[in-house]
Amino acid sequence: MWNRREFLGAFWGAAVLAQAPAEPEAGRGLRVGFIGVGNRGTSLLRTSLALGVEVPAICDINEAHLERALTLVENTGRARPEGYASGPEDFRRLVARQDLDAVINAGPWEWHTPMSVATMQAGKYAGVEVPAAVTLEECWQLVHTSEQTGMPCMMLENVCYFRNVLMVLNLIRQGWLGELTHCEGGYQHDVRGALVGHERRGLPGEITWRGAHAVTKNGNLYPTHPIGPIAWWLDINRGDRFTYLVSMSSKSRGLNYYVGRRHGPEHRNAKRAYALGDVNTSLIRTEQGATVTLYHDTVSPRPYDLILRVQGTKGIYSGTLDKLYLEDRSPQKDAWEEASVYYPEFEHPLWKRLGERARTHGHGGADYLTLHEFLTAVKRQVQTPIDVYDTAAWSAILPLSIESVAGRSKAVDFPDFTRGKWRTRPPVQVA
Amino acid sequence: MWNRREFLGAFWGAAVLAQAPAEPEAGRGLRVGFIGVGNRGTSLLRTSLALGVEVPAICDINEAHLERALTLVENTGRARPEGYASGPEDFRRLVARQDLDAVINAGPWEWHTPMSVATMQAGKYAGVEVPAAVTLEECWQLVHTSEQTGMPCMMLENVCYFRNVLMVLNLIRQGWLGELTHCEGGYQHDVRGALVGHERRGLPGEITWRGAHAVTKNGNLYPTHPIGPIAWWLDINRGDRFTYLVSMSSKSRGLNYYVGRRHGPEHRNAKRAYALGDVNTSLIRTEQGATVTLYHDTVSPRPYDLILRVQGTKGIYSGTLDKLYLEDRSPQKDAWEEASVYYPEFEHPLWKRLGERARTHGHGGADYLTLHEFLTAVKRQVQTPIDVYDTAAWSAILPLSIESVAGRSKAVDFPDFTRGKWRTRPPVQVA
Repeated sequence: MWNRREFLGAFWGAAVLAQAPAEPEAGRGLRVGFIGVGNRGTSLLRTSLALGVEVPAICDINEAHLERALTLVENTGRARPEGYASGPEDFRRLVARQDLDAVINAGPWEWHTPMSVATMQAGKYAGVEVPAAVTLEECWQLVHTSEQTGMPCMMLENVCYFRNVLMVLNLIRQGWLGELTHCEGGYQHDVRGALVGHERRGLPGEITWRGAHAVTKNGNLYPTHPIGPIAWWLDINRGDRFTYLVSMSSKSRGLNYYVGRRHGPEHRNAKRAYALGDVNTSLIRTEQGATVTLYHDTVSPRPYDLILRVQGTKGIYSGTLDKLYLEDRSPQKDAWEEASVYYPEFEHPLWKRLGERARTHGHGGADYLTLHEFLTAVKRQVQTPIDVYDTAAWSAILPLSIESVAGRSKAVDFPDFTRGKWRTRPPVQVA
Repeated sequence: MWNRREFLGAFWGAAVLAQAPAEPEAGRGLRVGFIGVGNRGTSLLRTSLALGVEVPAICDINEAHLERALTLVENTGRARPEGYASGPEDFRRLVARQDLDAVINAGPWEWHTPMSVATMQAGKYAGVEVPAAVTLEECWQLVHTSEQTGMPCMMLENVCYFRNVLMVLNLIRQGWLGELTHCEGGYQHDVRGALVGHERRGLPGEITWRGAHAVTKNGNLYPTHPIGPIAWWLDINRGDRFTYLVSMSSKSRGLNYYVGRRHGPEHRNAKRAYALGDVNTSLIRTEQGATVTLYHDTVSPRPYDLILRVQGTKGIYSGTLDKLYLEDRSPQKDAWEEASVYYPEFEHPLWKRLGERARTHGHGGADYLTLHEFLTAVKRQVQTPIDVYDTAAWSAILPLSIESVAGRSKAVDFPDFTRGKWRTRPPVQVA
């Protein structure tokens, strides 16, 4: 499905691109439907509108959210979209419409796969929020549906498009880090306030839909933000693949402590047993012998940090520090340099080209670039850069880590969603 | 063996101590023998002399090293020690002398246990460099010998006495981090130049005694620097214990690359197969449900970093950043503060008392404090702060990680060297 000539032409042609006139918005002329327009879905909608798409239809069972989204589109001067709110299966009517090229879904986690599968079966590109699946069966469903329908399914993993991530990808591709041996990442984000309801939302101390996962699941519940960029750096599904993982969770204390502190130790959610260990750590080994450490910690008081470390035989980058050391280049032996020193020479072409326009959008501009690349693939009718094999392999860490934790950190094998194609697939191309 | 009254009296009495007159050197009147006076042993000897000890005897089969050490003692105005250099077992004659209170050994790793066991059997305190043992059998030998002879065995783990480590211990004991859930540490130190010989040492590209371990062993070969402080923070063997670990190694590339780069790709040590994976990661779970991530990386180009992170329900400290966040105290939600802000109030009493004197010695003063505490225990004839159970449990990670890596990251149980005593032993007391 790749049009390799087009991609390769654009890929390293930074000098040419820098002189190119401002390109038309990637979404111009595309018709995109949206399912799930809570906080996250609304943000994706807003950025997609900036990218020029038409939005004929929006679905959400929360009528206030739906109304907000319909008005948002109208306020841009576009026609008011048709709204779908007739129960949790009403998205099926939306995806069946004839006037859509793609559907982006950002519902609760457990709806991501059903919505994406229905989208592909209806002959549309599926863009899906993270994680795309919560069970191994769902991962396989996505793969089989994409293969059978020929429709791509892209998990909209925005961290892949972070400025530092792509600059480091550039350095890796040019050989400055040597052969990669280890990566480390983590979703370390204090979201206790999103797992337990706030006073101002009228549900003090109540468990939210996201918090409900912490009640029943113990593992890495949100692996894709850190594993996306790492998978790109390591050429996962494109020359290498995840072989197995082991996972370990600490005791569960954070939510009990948090609810107790805010609502008193007698609140039932202060005394409840949560399955989720506060800090989950997984180790992944790849077929080519690289290793990955992956953290999940959403209930500890701490600054946000995705870590994003990559070590090779010739150098290292640390996202925590935003510093690097390149043996063949850094002036002082084994001493950090600020990554900022490297942007003038190694800024990724995508950031050179679109960085200015992206910056005003979510996550430092990464949301804009993610949707830009998704919509570009839709427009060209080629495969998406994050494809269904990546979508499945990255999401699979959720159920696999749960299985390992439940088995006293036993080794659990990854399915090979590519069924051998990882050996010959080319590295991801970032336009 | 603890004289708890003495320890507790000194422990939190910072205000009193700050006014105390300069105390006499801890080693005054003690007679200490040394086995192994290479770089490390000589450094320990020099600091011990500054602490006031007499040194009647020194052993080393390298006669140049021995001569250097004997002269070093003589140059302080002390009598020239007796030298022992008649083969690798000559240390046995040294430990048998009647005029020694303690023997410090810093030979190659595989001699640490035989030397310590002989020392205890001869009725002397044993001070031993890290790691104290390289097999589980050796760990047990140390434990049994110490129990049978009543003589303490202290691994001289200097990171336990780092200024930041003890400040954080202080914060933990005062409850500022809440209940601890996770720690992370690593021996991440580019010592390729100590594993492979230098031109200037006349052995370009040859494997050293330390490098020889990388040829045959795959695991965490040097766990004690990061695990020592973490074990103190978590009260390991004193209310909690290590239960099991899983360990994973990356492929082995660093030494091949290093030798090839310096001595050409045809050098036999550029082509040799090394057992040691470049980056080894181990996960440890404790009986009380805390988890620990432990790295070992000695062959990658990178800045030195022990990590030393500790997470609790109320806060976090990161050694990499030397920053912390305390929910009940930091001014801005989930934002780092420089650790330096906390020293005026939370500096550990030991550092307040001896920091100025310690600073001119190795590892930022930690070597001075480690030996100070060892010698203080010898003088008082009480148990050492790092005792034989700690020495064994921390060293055991070496053989246990090797076993796990060889078994595809299988879970491997820690022996309980305390045989149940961990439940009731009090937390470590740092004078």
